[in-house]
Amino acid sequence: MATPAVTRVLTGITTSGTPHLGNYVGAVRPAVAASRNPGTESFYFLADLHSLIKAQDPAKTQRSTLEIAATWLACGLDPAKVWFYRQSDVPETTELTWLLTCVAGKGILNRAHAYKAAVDKNRADGEDDDAGITAGLFMYPVLMAADILIFNANQVPVGRDQIQHIEMARDFGQRFNHVYGRDYFVLPEALVDDNVATLPGLDGRKMSKSYGNTIPLFASRNEMKKLIAGIVTDSRAPGEAKDTEGSALFQLYQAFASAEETAAMRQAYADGIGWGDAKQKLFERIDAEIAPLRDKYETLIAKPADIEAVLRDGGARLREKYAIPFLAELRDAVGLRDLSKQSAGSEAKAANKAALPQFKQYRDSDDRFYFKLLDGEGKLLVQSAGFDLPKDAGRAIGVLKQARTGDELQTPEIQEVLVPVEDVLAALAAMREAA
Amino acid sequence: MATPAVTRVLTGITTSGTPHLGNYVGAVRPAVAASRNPGTESFYFLADLHSLIKAQDPAKTQRSTLEIAATWLACGLDPAKVWFYRQSDVPETTELTWLLTCVAGKGILNRAHAYKAAVDKNRADGEDDDAGITAGLFMYPVLMAADILIFNANQVPVGRDQIQHIEMARDFGQRFNHVYGRDYFVLPEALVDDNVATLPGLDGRKMSKSYGNTIPLFASRNEMKKLIAGIVTDSRAPGEAKDTEGSALFQLYQAFASAEETAAMRQAYADGIGWGDAKQKLFERIDAEIAPLRDKYETLIAKPADIEAVLRDGGARLREKYAIPFLAELRDAVGLRDLSKQSAGSEAKAANKAALPQFKQYRDSDDRFYFKLLDGEGKLLVQSAGFDLPKDAGRAIGVLKQARTGDELQTPEIQEVLVPVEDVLAALAAMREAA
Repeated sequence: MATPAVTRVLTGITTSGTPHLGNYVGAVRPAVAASRNPGTESFYFLADLHSLIKAQDPAKTQRSTLEIAATWLACGLDPAKVWFYRQSDVPETTELTWLLTCVAGKGILNRAHAYKAAVDKNRADGEDDDAGITAGLFMYPVLMAADILIFNANQVPVGRDQIQHIEMARDFGQRFNHVYGRDYFVLPEALVDDNVATLPGLDGRKMSKSYGNTIPLFASRNEMKKLIAGIVTDSRAPGEAKDTEGSALFQLYQAFASAEETAAMRQAYADGIGWGDAKQKLFERIDAEIAPLRDKYETLIAKPADIEAVLRDGGARLREKYAIPFLAELRDAVGLRDLSKQSAGSEAKAANKAALPQFKQYRDSDDRFYFKLLDGEGKLLVQSAGFDLPKDAGRAIGVLKQARTGDELQTPEIQEVLVPVEDVLAALAAMREAA
Repeated sequence: MATPAVTRVLTGITTSGTPHLGNYVGAVRPAVAASRNPGTESFYFLADLHSLIKAQDPAKTQRSTLEIAATWLACGLDPAKVWFYRQSDVPETTELTWLLTCVAGKGILNRAHAYKAAVDKNRADGEDDDAGITAGLFMYPVLMAADILIFNANQVPVGRDQIQHIEMARDFGQRFNHVYGRDYFVLPEALVDDNVATLPGLDGRKMSKSYGNTIPLFASRNEMKKLIAGIVTDSRAPGEAKDTEGSALFQLYQAFASAEETAAMRQAYADGIGWGDAKQKLFERIDAEIAPLRDKYETLIAKPADIEAVLRDGGARLREKYAIPFLAELRDAVGLRDLSKQSAGSEAKAANKAALPQFKQYRDSDDRFYFKLLDGEGKLLVQSAGFDLPKDAGRAIGVLKQARTGDELQTPEIQEVLVPVEDVLAALAAMREAA
């Protein structure tokens, strides 16, 4: 599969719990806005297979999937313009999971943060390391790699805590490419937005289900009003000037208001607005944005068959266009083939490709990442220095690919050029020509 | 899925390497004979997904799958009478693998022999525990459990070294049944035949690819003759009486000969048959059995498209009859459901079932296996003693199910009866009636 001309951006959506304002501001709203970016092909999937690692209440799993699908649609995700589907509706993902399982290093999985945290907790509790830990938690990163790689996504928007999983997806994809001798997989990049708004909850701490301080996104108007009335404030009386700094109420307002509205509220704080009035203003501002979405949500959730149809349609079109043909190519790559077809075709392609110079990325025993440039016969032309992250090695390759003068080869990223500089430049030119 | 009336026997076939006489005598011939047993429904699958853990040469994987499929067909497996299919043609297996992964305890996988052996080797070599170990080796038992459970096989013929994997399949299946509140899976039993013939190779050690001492099953007549001529013997001259004990040649002969023929050869040894003559007789005896199979094999392998068609047909029929509907049931069980369908149906069924008394099997923290008999509301009626193996617990349950008198409850298998004996007998009777 060649690198697509547009950038593919893939977003996984957790299907547990009921969405709250914090999810809306931190995830749904920015993701829906990003889905309208030109030049991108967006993939949004309900990660129901992942949810099974924790959620073992089937009725809840079903209900939560419905609510979350309805939420994203109500908030403006347009299934005619983006791929919107359920993970479990693309069974090619689990087939690819096995293919990747066979190349994924177990040692890499041992180092996954989520797994290590569970082990640490067991140790702290005096339990066996793996007490109560399922293989699902351990294998999560391989399924996630399959989610990404089955569509050769270029970018995956994630929080900092998920960067490691993207690195693993790169590692497994790269290893597969290496073992089977061709760049089947594009190596995805983590897209980390450090400006993601985190919303305070009713008690001033981050809004989170685990703190029990959330405002459900589609609470009724009355309920929302009541919840907002319960937001903690200090005890300053009306007429006293109030601090915006550290005010959960102000931060919530800001997350929904324009710059002008925010400035006006800041002034109102300075002028000593009463907390009751401020809460009324906050409620009105949130309601102005949420009420139309809530209407859409209620219309949608009343017709679950329509949501089911949207998801099935997305999954079916996606399978036909990408997943089924790509998996067929991958099955062929590993040798799961029609027995009546001579294998010459596929191997010959690989051989043609091999006649070109190529870059090889790898992780060495010092756990750092390296690359080499080899000529068509496998002779070493350039040896890189070590990098901490595979994507740094990837970037250095990207720069080197464009090199047209000997000077450009004299960088700290390159440890050694083992042949005359002209040979390296000729190899790079040949690769550019063939690309 | 109810327990089938016939016994389902499932056999996995490794798809690596070229079959030799040892495979034929030890695996293919007895399995083909067993496939003709009345009262059984036999499943034979080419374990190509498993082979990917080690085999990373796609052309070899393809070739080996073809040769092995042709071998089994040539040796008499009848795809009109048994299920004969390729593991990778039943993608429901990988979907089920993920569902099982989410309930499988990681700690159990840590104890798998094959994985532990790889770790031990790394330690001996001074490497990191998991150096060079893929997640595929580690997760093998979960895929194998899915192979078995997707068809609710009752029995799985295995060597002693594979018993542990069957125990794991039982464990994962039981855990799934427990988590999702119904006996979706039949718990399979290992069928161990301690009389499996192991054949000596050319050098007298067990015939094995890793010793390089094999006679390929479908070697040409000339090649087979030449190989047999190379079997090690002692140096006794013609006319000297010879030992049958420890004679690889004699054991090979015996594996193909009738009792009468074997007795005659024993006499010939005593009478001092020359090694050359003995080898000629061995060649003739093997050739008499293999030559017709070789003819079939050559006809078959010349038409790979026919073999491909046989395998595809088997997989397609099997999916339609069992795998697709059963996976749909399992998806429903875990909550991967049509969002427009109320979940009442399925939960209600589970509730009806729960109203009956039931046995629960489990493994306790002492790593032993137990069962309990609970009434419809979950009250404990009977607590078992601990068993070393889950199948022992299963047998004790089987016995208890048939108990009709208080005396029958007084067995060492039962640790405690917690209610009046009549209540237990009534519960057992109610279960028998509902069954």
